[in-house]
Amino acid sequence: MSSQLTGNQQAIRWHPPAYDIRVESVPIPKIEHPDDAIVKIKLAGLCGSDLHTYRGTEELTDALTCGHEFIGEVVALGESFHNGVTGRPDLYADLNIGDKVVSPFTVSCGECHFCRVGFTCRCVESRLFGTPTTPGGQAQYVRVPRAGGTLYNLRDIVGAAGTSQSEKEDVTKLADSSLLLLCDILPTGVFAAFQALNHPKTLPMMNSCPYPQSSSFARFALSSKVLGAEDVSLTFAIVGLGPVGLCACISLFDILTSRGADFRIVAIDPVEARREKMNAIISTIANKGPHLHSIAVASIDESKDIVEKWTNGLGCNAVLEVVGNTSALTLAYELVRPFGSISAVGVHSGNQIPFSGRQLYDKNVSFDFGRCPVRAMFPAALDILLRRQDVFGAVGGTASLVEKIVGFDEAADTYELFDKGKCGKVLFDPWK
Amino acid sequence: MSSQLTGNQQAIRWHPPAYDIRVESVPIPKIEHPDDAIVKIKLAGLCGSDLHTYRGTEELTDALTCGHEFIGEVVALGESFHNGVTGRPDLYADLNIGDKVVSPFTVSCGECHFCRVGFTCRCVESRLFGTPTTPGGQAQYVRVPRAGGTLYNLRDIVGAAGTSQSEKEDVTKLADSSLLLLCDILPTGVFAAFQALNHPKTLPMMNSCPYPQSSSFARFALSSKVLGAEDVSLTFAIVGLGPVGLCACISLFDILTSRGADFRIVAIDPVEARREKMNAIISTIANKGPHLHSIAVASIDESKDIVEKWTNGLGCNAVLEVVGNTSALTLAYELVRPFGSISAVGVHSGNQIPFSGRQLYDKNVSFDFGRCPVRAMFPAALDILLRRQDVFGAVGGTASLVEKIVGFDEAADTYELFDKGKCGKVLFDPWK
Ligand SMILES: NC(=O)c1ccc[n+]([C@@H]2O[C@H](COP(=O)([O-])OP(=O)(O)OC[C@H]3O[C@@H](n4cnc5c(N)ncnc54)[C@H](O)[C@@H]3O)[C@@H](O)[C@H]2O)c1
Ligand SMILES: NC(=O)c1ccc[n+]([C@@H]2O[C@H](COP(=O)([O-])OP(=O)(O)OC[C@H]3O[C@@H](n4cnc5c(N)ncnc54)[C@H](O)[C@@H]3O)[C@@H](O)[C@H]2O)c1
Ligand SMILES: [Zn+2]
Ligand SMILES: [Zn+2]
Ligand SMILES: [Zn+2]
Ligand SMILES: [Zn+2]
Repeated sequence: MSSQLTGNQQAIRWHPPAYDIRVESVPIPKIEHPDDAIVKIKLAGLCGSDLHTYRGTEELTDALTCGHEFIGEVVALGESFHNGVTGRPDLYADLNIGDKVVSPFTVSCGECHFCRVGFTCRCVESRLFGTPTTPGGQAQYVRVPRAGGTLYNLRDIVGAAGTSQSEKEDVTKLADSSLLLLCDILPTGVFAAFQALNHPKTLPMMNSCPYPQSSSFARFALSSKVLGAEDVSLTFAIVGLGPVGLCACISLFDILTSRGADFRIVAIDPVEARREKMNAIISTIANKGPHLHSIAVASIDESKDIVEKWTNGLGCNAVLEVVGNTSALTLAYELVRPFGSISAVGVHSGNQIPFSGRQLYDKNVSFDFGRCPVRAMFPAALDILLRRQDVFGAVGGTASLVEKIVGFDEAADTYELFDKGKCGKVLFDPWK
Repeated sequence: MSSQLTGNQQAIRWHPPAYDIRVESVPIPKIEHPDDAIVKIKLAGLCGSDLHTYRGTEELTDALTCGHEFIGEVVALGESFHNGVTGRPDLYADLNIGDKVVSPFTVSCGECHFCRVGFTCRCVESRLFGTPTTPGGQAQYVRVPRAGGTLYNLRDIVGAAGTSQSEKEDVTKLADSSLLLLCDILPTGVFAAFQALNHPKTLPMMNSCPYPQSSSFARFALSSKVLGAEDVSLTFAIVGLGPVGLCACISLFDILTSRGADFRIVAIDPVEARREKMNAIISTIANKGPHLHSIAVASIDESKDIVEKWTNGLGCNAVLEVVGNTSALTLAYELVRPFGSISAVGVHSGNQIPFSGRQLYDKNVSFDFGRCPVRAMFPAALDILLRRQDVFGAVGGTASLVEKIVGFDEAADTYELFDKGKCGKVLFDPWK
């Protein structure tokens, strides 16, 4: 089934120690394992996570091919892929050369405990694209390990059980630049929102039912009460308005409005350009409902006053940390109320967490850290992607999440601009 | 309604800087605010939390009356208590002199947002008994602020909606030494278990449903699967087997067996006497079911091997930290699996949390810190108390949670023994 390509390709490569991006000619990858697929890239994303490598924070010593967000077309498959394979993830039987695929940013086998349970980003075979061992997708071709567990076949998504005919048509119509958002940033935004909304410390407000009856597995001798309107109104903060923070805000807004919840969100970034983008998005997504007043965009200092005023000094029910540095965690702690939770999706460095045990005890704080299990969040992300084409659809509008699509010749400049917060989400077209 | 007492009483008092416990004669407290009640103490508990003061960790400079666990009888009430009070917690209308009451270890008004939502330990009026501003219950009398929000009237518990006649009788029959456990350690143990069992990262195993469909507020385009038996078996660790750790273990065991869950628990303490008590309790609570094999008692080193072997190196689904020091948190992190959660009820000091952001990100760890909202956990705790009279009923048996009841003359010695892990739960009878 393998139809190997030979020769060289162009790839965006990072060189140590930091800030050194070059477009280089490297060999087209080959099938190395029966479970591999080779994907010809249509679009690859530049992401805040690439900046950790770019800035040298990872202290890597070898050059690497960047990028962990890509969509494309299958051009070669290993021996594991053939009709009639059973007992393995469906894709080993289904995937064909020519199929259009979306890839989560990590490899997942689909066969281990973590994959089965939905913790796909912690698969025992996990690998992150764009790292020394797993060349990334900012290239013309990429090798995808455990491809039968890792990739989504667009054909399968369209045909999935429970998908209505009109949804199928909508998926088919999605632009490549929209689909690319499913690799990482939209599922991660949904994940950040999901963790905040489903935390046992948020459930009383979501369910109008006091703690702990608001959760499943307590045992109760007494019957439960219903909470009044003044107790169930929710206040959230989103710390960091890079592309992932924007997705987190849109997801949170979308889920809360669809539930008719009474809520407020303060969206925070020190960089003005990032706040402007957020404002443009808000006036698009919130311009019809009664909720225009419910999102404020703020600098760090402003945010403290806003939360203070909105909540009479109580603080936020939950804070979504979408930055990945110590100052963002400190701000999150300051803004959260007692018995609140912090959903931290930022990729953090080796610095120690800036809290004492006493601080966390004294506020009954909860923390959720970590990587998004993209495969598991995919259905929820696709749903939001379809319903919010006003911001996820077009490229380059004031309220568009994707700012532009550029060729590899602009790679070094684009990394630099993105690093400085001077541009938003940019995609690379390797054939431009 | 107030019938003030005058004169002096005996009280167990701590003196700075550390390890200095004296029984002293101090004035009987008086009603200072209309919402106050004065309670004549029947029994007061000595608790691991008292040790933070005892050891000088709190760096307090003034002497204080110790103790935050007490049951007793109402002997004086402020002006707020009279029949016909409306719009306030029921107890302002109901409570009478002579009523038998159980007190949570913190004051809660019953009227603020936190109280209404069930986060009662973070009441805006919160005070901890046995601190400089709020004299404790290791005395003959104690003043209870916001008593209409804080206290439980045993009569009300017995008459609560949903309580069957036989339950009412069971509650009436509970020994004082059993009721005393409802002030703190049993609800806190239940809380530790509750946080672990209801965490979104545990729910897939509890619901046999993959993440995130296992939680409430995700949006899904795809239908969900059912997890197989090999994926839903749960492994827990309990770090620290003081009285609270024992209660956590009993609660976890009780909830899991009543759900028919497939689980294993490793219960860990470096002190042999503490492990022996745990073993005695286990052979009592687990001696009939098929689950005898499912709890192991271990030293710190042994625990790592056990978890390694039980889980093929994956680690625990959730760890209950019931110690309150840095080494316990470090052990919890080591034992937890990727996408696991740590329910930390230990009272921690000002030391920084011993983790880097990267460590937490890399394992997708979740943390819940903080104080138990005793009032909110009370129904669940009472339920377990009634069903586990085999360990919570008698005093002084090998498998009894309460080891002995002593007079104030043994206060200083008892503090010393308890501090060294040489005794378990001891109660003081101020009239002995
Ligand atoms: N958990 C996951 O699976 C996952 C997936 C994708 C991205 N990420 C991480 O999420 C984070 C955000 O990604 P992105 O692409 O949006 O990155 P980005 O770098 O474009 O955006 C980060 C934003 O945070 C702002 N910021 C910096 N310090 C701040 C502070 N103290 N308070 C508020 N805002 C502050 C910056 O100005 C910037 O706009 C990164 O750490 C990235 O690595 C995690
Ligand atoms: N969150 C709450 O509301 C709440 C309520 C009550 C008690 N507490 C706290 O819970 C903790 C336990 O209370 P307790 O009364 O059982 O205290 P305790 O001091 O009797 O028990 C603590 C136990 O932990 C053990 N230990 C010490 N280091 C350890 C380690 N690294 N690994 C494993 N075990 C270790 C000790 O040997 C001891 O047996 C204390 O910090 C107490 O203040 C919290
Ligand atoms: Zn990314
Ligand atoms: Zn896997
Ligand atoms: Zn206590
Ligand atoms: Zn209150």
